This record gives sequence, C-alpha cells and structure tokens, in this order.
Amino acid sequence: MITERIGNLRAYMHSKRIHAFIIPSTDPHQSEYVADHWKLRAYFSGFTGSAGILVVTKDIAALWTDSRYFLQVEEECKNNEVTLYKQSIPHAPEHIEWICNILDEHSSIGLDYRQFSKAQIDYIQGFTRLKNIELQNLPHFAKEIWTNRPDVPNHSITIHPIEFSGESTASKLKKVKEKIKNQQADFYFFSSLDEIAWLFNMRSKDVDFTPLVTAYALVGKKTSILFCDKHRFSASAISMFQELNISIHDYDSIAAMLPSLTQNKIIITDASSLNYATFEAVRGTFVFENSLAKELKAIKNTIEVEGVKKCMLKDGVALTKFFIWLEKELEKRAISEYEIGKKLEGFRQQREHYIGESFAAIVGYKGNGAIIHYTAPKEDSTMVSNEGILLVDSGAQYKDGTTDITRTVWLGGTPSEELKRAYTSVLKGYIELEQLQFPEGTAGVQIDAFARAYLWKNGLDYPHGTGHGIGSFGMVHEPDQGFATTATTKRGTTPHLANQLTTIEPGCYVAKEFGIRIENVVLSRIINKTKFGVFLSFEPLTLCYIDTNLIDFELLTKNDINWLNNYHKHVIELLGPLLNKEELKWLKNKCKMTH
Amino acid sequence: MITERIGNLRAYMHSKRIHAFIIPSTDPHQSEYVADHWKLRAYFSGFTGSAGILVVTKDIAALWTDSRYFLQVEEECKNNEVTLYKQSIPHAPEHIEWICNILDEHSSIGLDYRQFSKAQIDYIQGFTRLKNIELQNLPHFAKEIWTNRPDVPNHSITIHPIEFSGESTASKLKKVKEKIKNQQADFYFFSSLDEIAWLFNMRSKDVDFTPLVTAYALVGKKTSILFCDKHRFSASAISMFQELNISIHDYDSIAAMLPSLTQNKIIITDASSLNYATFEAVRGTFVFENSLAKELKAIKNTIEVEGVKKCMLKDGVALTKFFIWLEKELEKRAISEYEIGKKLEGFRQQREHYIGESFAAIVGYKGNGAIIHYTAPKEDSTMVSNEGILLVDSGAQYKDGTTDITRTVWLGGTPSEELKRAYTSVLKGYIELEQLQFPEGTAGVQIDAFARAYLWKNGLDYPHGTGHGIGSFGMVHEPDQGFATTATTKRGTTPHLANQLTTIEPGCYVAKEFGIRIENVVLSRIINKTKFGVFLSFEPLTLCYIDTNLIDFELLTKNDINWLNNYHKHVIELLGPLLNKEELKWLKNKCKMTH
Repeated sequence: MITERIGNLRAYMHSKRIHAFIIPSTDPHQSEYVADHWKLRAYFSGFTGSAGILVVTKDIAALWTDSRYFLQVEEECKNNEVTLYKQSIPHAPEHIEWICNILDEHSSIGLDYRQFSKAQIDYIQGFTRLKNIELQNLPHFAKEIWTNRPDVPNHSITIHPIEFSGESTASKLKKVKEKIKNQQADFYFFSSLDEIAWLFNMRSKDVDFTPLVTAYALVGKKTSILFCDKHRFSASAISMFQELNISIHDYDSIAAMLPSLTQNKIIITDASSLNYATFEAVRGTFVFENSLAKELKAIKNTIEVEGVKKCMLKDGVALTKFFIWLEKELEKRAISEYEIGKKLEGFRQQREHYIGESFAAIVGYKGNGAIIHYTAPKEDSTMVSNEGILLVDSGAQYKDGTTDITRTVWLGGTPSEELKRAYTSVLKGYIELEQLQFPEGTAGVQIDAFARAYLWKNGLDYPHGTGHGIGSFGMVHEPDQGFATTATTKRGTTPHLANQLTTIEPGCYVAKEFGIRIENVVLSRIINKTKFGVFLSFEPLTLCYIDTNLIDFELLTKNDINWLNNYHKHVIELLGPLLNKEELKWLKNKCKMTH
Repeated sequence: MITERIGNLRAYMHSKRIHAFIIPSTDPHQSEYVADHWKLRAYFSGFTGSAGILVVTKDIAALWTDSRYFLQVEEECKNNEVTLYKQSIPHAPEHIEWICNILDEHSSIGLDYRQFSKAQIDYIQGFTRLKNIELQNLPHFAKEIWTNRPDVPNHSITIHPIEFSGESTASKLKKVKEKIKNQQADFYFFSSLDEIAWLFNMRSKDVDFTPLVTAYALVGKKTSILFCDKHRFSASAISMFQELNISIHDYDSIAAMLPSLTQNKIIITDASSLNYATFEAVRGTFVFENSLAKELKAIKNTIEVEGVKKCMLKDGVALTKFFIWLEKELEKRAISEYEIGKKLEGFRQQREHYIGESFAAIVGYKGNGAIIHYTAPKEDSTMVSNEGILLVDSGAQYKDGTTDITRTVWLGGTPSEELKRAYTSVLKGYIELEQLQFPEGTAGVQIDAFARAYLWKNGLDYPHGTGHGIGSFGMVHEPDQGFATTATTKRGTTPHLANQLTTIEPGCYVAKEFGIRIENVVLSRIINKTKFGVFLSFEPLTLCYIDTNLIDFELLTKNDINWLNNYHKHVIELLGPLLNKEELKWLKNKCKMTH
C-alpha cells in the first residue's frame, strides 16, 4: 500500500521533473497535531508519530525523526521501503543538508509552501542556492495522488465562555492593539491555531485531541478579520464578533484578500508559525517577533488555574477508579493494551465538561513502554497480565482545562533491583526539579538536568526533554516554555515566568525490557523576592498516587520521603471526598506513609 | 586626558566624515588579553577591564560591557565623559543595533577591520545595510592620534619542550594535515594566538599574562608557513621548523603573501578568530569550522595533566605561605590591597618554572570584592586590616602549567549571619557541581545551575558564568568549554569531554559590602560507562585550604562535610611534605576536621 503511494508520488515527481519531495508532518499553521486532511506524511510513509519528515527521491524514501520515535518507525515501516534517518537533535532540519548533498546541481525539490514556515524556507534556500537547486511550490500534489483525501475540517464552532477562559476577547485584543500601536504597525497577523483559539475565545474539533479552529487572523488597530468559514459560526457568535469590529471571511479567501489588505502596511507576525505561501501573499512590510498571543497565553489567569485544578480532581478520580478496575480485572484475565486505554478513556468520559483525550493515550506494557510515543494498535495489541511493569501516559480535554499525566505501575511478581533503581532514580529526578527554586527568567535548558542528576549518578539517562507547557482547554504541548537538553529548541531557551503550566516528566527506557516515566503538571509561582531577583518554584497540580512497589527506599533521602508522604497526603485530601468508601480505602493503601 | 584623546578622535572622525567609531578590546587575533599595542579601547576610554567596546559619536562616548564590569566602569570612567551602556548578555553585540538606530541613513562608521572577525562584520552589515550606513576600514586611525603607542611585540621566542607539551609539533601537524586531506582542502589557516602557540610548541611574552607569540599560521598538506618575525627565533628553532617543512615569514608580510598563496585554494579556518582584513586578503574558498587546534588543545594529554598537578603543588605552597604571612602581618599593621597582591606574586616567583601571573590578581577587601574583575590600583589602594572579608583571585603561568584559584577569607571580627549564609551557599554550590556525574557531551549551560541551586534556594545568585577552560602554560581563559547561564556563548554550548581542565567558581556579591568566590581548577575524567552513555565527573586539582570561619555548619549536609574533610585531608597530604613544621601546623589548623 505504502509502496504504491510512494510509486504514485514518484510518477508525479517524474512528470514535474522533481528529484526530491519533502513532506513534513505539519499543516499551514505549523501545528503539531494536524487534521486528517493534512496527514500527508503518515499517508505516504505509514509512520503515524507526531514528529517526522519524509523525503522521497527516485531511489530513497527517508523518514527523518528523533530518538523518541526510532522504535516506532522501525515497527510501523518494517514492511515498506521507508528507511529511518536519525536526527541527532529533535526537530533539527538535518535532512536539508543531506538532500542537497545527494542531489546534483540544478536539481529540483518539490514541496507545498503552506507546510513550511518562512524561517524554514530561508534555511532550505541557504543550502539549495549553493548548488542552484530549485524549489517548486506544488500545493496540489496530493490532490492528484491521494484519492478519498479527507476535507479541510468544517465543524461548528463554540464560544469558550468567560467562566472558563477568564478573559474576554475584547481584553485580549486590546493588548494586541496596544502592541500594534507601540510598534507603529498596522496589523498583527496570527497563523497559529492555538493562538487564534485563545485570542478569539473559540473552540472546535478540527484537530485530533485539540479543540482548535482552522483559521487565520489579521488584527488591525480598529477592525480585525478572522479567516474562517462563516457557516461554522452561530448567529450569536457572528453578532458578538461584529460588536468587536471583527468581520469573518471564509478560510480560503485569505489568498485573494491578503495582497490588497496589506499593501504598504506594516504587519507584525511570528515567523515561526507564518507559512511561506502566506508570506509571499503579503504585500506590506513584516516585523517579525515572538508572538504576543503565545506569550500572553502561556501565563494563566486565575480562572484558568482554578479550571485546571478542577480538571485535576476529575482526572484524579478517573485514574483512581481506572487503577482499581485494572488491578481487580487483571486478577481475572489478561487485557489488551488497547482495551486498557479505552477503559481509561471511559472513566474520564463520565466527568463533567469532558471533551476527549488530549493525545493518544500511551499504554505500554514491559518493552512497549520503552517506545516513547507508543500507541497500542486497535488489533492485536499486547496482552497485559498481572505481573511486570506498565506505563500509562494519558490526558484529557475538559472545557475547564487540559491534563497530561504519566504513571508507571508494577502489576505483580518481583521487580529486579535494576528496575527499582531506575524507577527510584526517575522519581528522585522528578522531586529534584519540582522542588527547585530558581530566578524568574531561567531558561529550560538551564534546569532540565536537575531531573537527570540522580539518573546520571547511576549511569542512566533518557532521550527526551523533561517537560513542556500545557494549554487551558488547548494544546497539550503548548509553546514555548519547557525543559530541554539543548538550546536549539524554544523549550530550552524560553524563560520560565510565574503562573505558567508545565509538565515535569523524567523517564528511563531500556528497549524490549521496560519504560518508566513519572509526569505531573506543575504551576510556577513566585516564592521569594530578594535583591538578587524574583524566585519561582513549582506546585504540583496533578493528583494521582505514585506506585511505591517499584521504589528502592534505600535510595530515598529524608527529603524525598517527606515529599512523597506530603504528596500522597495531598492526593487523599483532595480526592477522598470524591471517592466512595471502598475506593478511598484502596487509595489510602496505595498512599500509605513510608518510613 | 581621556577627554583630549576622544577630542582628537572626533577631529579625526570629522576629517574622514565618520559619524561613529567602534573600538573593541581585541587585537587582529580576537585575543582576550592583548599586547599594549592593541589597548586602544583602554587608551580612549580609561576603562582597563578585559571586555568592553567603546563607541564614539559626535556627542556620545559609550562603553558597552557586561555586568562583571559595571562597577569598574563607573569607577574608572567617573571623571571623564565615557558613559556605561549595559549589555544584558555578556559579549552580545547589542551596541550595533543601538548605533544603527541613532545614526542617520547614509552615515559612516569607522573601524579597523583587523579588530573584527568575519562573523562580526557580517552581523554589523546585517544592520548597516538596512540604513545604507557605510563601513570605513581605517587601520591607521590610531597611528595619527596615539603618539608613543607601544610597538607590536617583538620578544624572543622559546620552544616549549616535549617534557612540558607532551606532544611534538610533528604529531600535532599530522592531525591537522589529516583533516585537510579528509576535507579535500589545501590549507588550514590559524589566527588564534593560543592555537598557534600550542600547535608549534612555542612561547613568548607578547601578551600580558599569557605566553603567546604574535603570528598567523597557514598549514598546508606538505609545507606550512608561520607568519612571525624571523629574528625572534633562535637558529636551532628555525632549523627545527625547517625539518618539519615550516618556513617562517615576517608577521607583516601576510597581507602581501596571502592573496597569491591562496589563489584557487580551499582554506579551512575558524570564522570566529579570522579577522576581516585577512578574510578579504584570501583569494580562495573558505570552509568554516570550529578550529581543530582549539578542540585538540582543550583535551589535555598525560604530560600536561601531570604538569598542572605539579603547578598546583607549587601554587598551594605559595598560597599557604602567603596566607600565613597575611595573617601574621595583619596583626602588626594594615596593608594595602596592592601590596598584598605583590606579596602573593613574590611567593609564587620563588617556585620552579615560574614565569608570571596568569592574570592581574584580584585582591578585593570588603566591598571591593564585589567588583568582579577588580584590580587594586598601584597608588592609594584600599587598606586591609585584621577584620572583615577579603577575596583573593589569582593565578600563575609556570612552564609546566597554568593556575587560577579564588579563596575568600575572614580576617577577624564576627561575620554576620547573612554573610555566612552566602559563603556557605557558594561553597555548597561548588561542591554540588564538582560532584556531579554527567554524560560526556553535556553542554555547560545544562549544568551551570548546579552551582547555583543552593544560592537560589536562599534568594541569592551571581552575575557571571560558573567557570571556564584553562590552558597548559597557555591562556587562563581557554576556549571553548565552561559553564554559562546562556546558550549564546560557547562556554554554554560546548560539550564537556574527558581530560579537560575547567574552573568551577560560583560566587555571591553585594555592592559596597562584600564579594565571595570559591574557585578550583578541576579535571574531567571518565567515571562510568553504561548502555546509556559515557559519564564524566570532576577531580579537583587546586590545592589550598578553604576558610571555615565563614561556614554556617548548620547548612552543610553530611555529604558536604565529608567533601570538605576529604578535600582538606588531600590538601594536607600533598602540601605537607613541601612545608616546614610551623607552616604545616598552621595549615592543619586551618584544615581541621569538622563535625
């Protein structure tokens, strides 16, 4: 099947005299998760992970991705000709140099400009120009190959009410307009779907796992334009937007409208989300800067923080009920990873304001837990029995917030010393980073290693960053702040500020043996102000017991034990009133004080 | 005086129709410390620190530097019109944007291309082109203003013998030639003085505190050229170089020879040390990469490690004798900071293979210790008496190695709780980073904060990176590895590898009150190899007691106390045999075991 699709693409490439085609995993908004319409890379490669780039030449179909996905690519592409090319740095465009090396002078590369940011095309041209390689923008390439391609999403749009958003669109737009004025510009242009959903307080279900709306937005000093199919809005939404001087034009009309709208104007935008087709359509002058909406959105207001705290109660109850069910059911029978994931979803579905999963739950038994972004297949997924280790990484979208949690549990039998040392090291790493106090403005790359130091001491490590920002009924991987090992990503270089939501999720993985990860969402808060600066620390918001069966208590310090006991006390206090007597008894047993 | 010099420069600028003149602190080799001939920025501004850039316009004389030098600039420039402009990021060229903002379109900026790297001119032109601002290369500007300017250095050159270098020039050149061959290039061009001194195993005293030789080197596949005044070499050195197919041509002949030598050739070089005048003189094609000599040099061979260990014994003895002298002498009289520095130099001078100081010793009493790169003036420096806090940061060049050590000592009276907490936090920071185990390849920015975490917990911090590489009878600040808070410097981004020498030097400073810094040189060693990687840790090489009078023992963990006792035991074991009975008794008292 994949072979046939690649064959069709090669025939198309031949007809257009193209020597290499680049198919990234993104959409015209540089989204991480994309609508089915944009799943081109998965369609042509078979690899369904969220990050990876396919490069097809006459002889090679190269899938470039980072270490999180190595095992998954090898598994999903084992029966086709797609070959894994390993990125040494996640998201680094290492394939560009590679393509330009293997192509002859005056060759031609095909791509869809909408799938590439301005910054990416600049980068590509830095290499292609050296060898006079031409770029051909072919926005319709897939139309001619991919029959039955899903449409651009078209669902109805709901307004996200102030009781959840905590700030009106009018108030948010005012801040953007002040920025336009201060910069003596005419417009602020937004391409990023989560920024637009935040700014206009609207939600839909265009993208898997994420309540986004396919749109562009051009905010002016007085009037603004939302490029989004009008029929998707209710009459009341349209009139509400009208009152704010926001007019709505169809999504596809942007290409025709943008040139005249922007003639001789100054437009502020974020080059990292602006696609190259839109860049070329603008006639005015750009001022590039990190998106104001992204920066404002990353700092949660009081209502959003209250909202996510409510979600943590709901998630905590669902997870408690789920782990009780799992333990009891495994006494009776083996259960597939897929069924376990569905069951967990079922427990969350019963909670108030539940919308859906915030990403494809990872239920990885034993060696499957080592595949970092694993998804259990619907058919023939691994059977889980009441022994060994299970990693469960899951999250939900509720109208009042977004969650993301990982727990690793021991299902029975006697864990090896190696496993206990690894699990305990991961837990200690989590505690170390969560308890760190640091100056506001510290970048993620500066403190990521606090979650690793104890692992390193034991000769262990993990091949991913230690955490990411998380949205408020928004993206589960929200830009920009986080914890990363390199300064080449924004997760590494973005300053941490007060009132941000971030995950802390160290891990440890041994291929074919086990995967361990412990993840909580934490809130950054001001804890100290001195003449040396403002200092922050993290408050854990996630509420779910941490399995103590895998802890080697010899390795815990008094401080670690205090942390664990306090956390478990906190979990019982908050979840207790929401559980029945039997459930609470079970949870108290899981959370019992440790020496 | 400074006013007159700036006045002369402005007259010169007026005659050349120049609207701004940029005077950086470097020489044509992008050196940190420069020969007197190149101390242009100090000549025109009065500021003598090692990092800073002067920009002179018709109305403004702006001195751009980073937080390490803020207090020093304010002190040294208080009686002239030079104004401090604060760099928010050390070494960041923030002045360029500023100049281009204040200049009109079609203005002209004067500079000496030899003082700027290719990368720097590219950066500058990125801004100047936007406003059609012209750059004027004026290599002779100072000649016409600075009468009595010192000559380019001209001292005799000695060959650094294999008993100290541990590797022959032939062996080093072989590695460079292999690289030239592998890259299918013709030459490797070196501009950096410390790389050239290392590669050709030669030393002189061209630069303050650093045993370097003013030269350029063009290494070819068979023959190489050293551009360095021939009369500086002994006959035997010249014939030794001849045997290695190295010909020597006068330093100034490079401008005339380079164009024909490089016609149609491929030249590998490091753009960060290549000056723009040389870049323009080359007729061939450049391949830019991080300098191979720099990378090789950063990894010390066995002889070099043995050498620096011998130096640490010498330094340790000198420092012990010095602190004994200081303690006794202060009982009798107050002593100036300047005299204290000279006395310390005197103790080192008596040691074998001593050449000179490796930088201007910092002897900072009380508030002066808060001036991070303080130098006590020869006249009227602060008088030190037997009470309060004293910071002493010093180092030496010996033929067998280079040292750099900071100790902060309490001279008498009762230290405040605040001071003890700060000192103890600095010590704990040092211990934390020194004891860290981490994967080979970890960048400095990832682990710098381990030296800060305890300070942060107490609301404290320090405005400089935590350490730098150090040479082997070479530069005290050797590129590239180190520990930094940002990923914008190589100290932050360079991977740590085994067998490198680096300093660990956390601190804490309160202006006008105190400065605390504790600094050792450490050696990176492989401590563990697992399936997760090769892990390194640091071995402290510096041998000098750490003052315990300022420690708040309540804040030390058992691990901290063990570290301190072990370190002191090690100091006594190694220095003991080299001290007389009375000295050893004194040292044992300083190093006595703590609870």
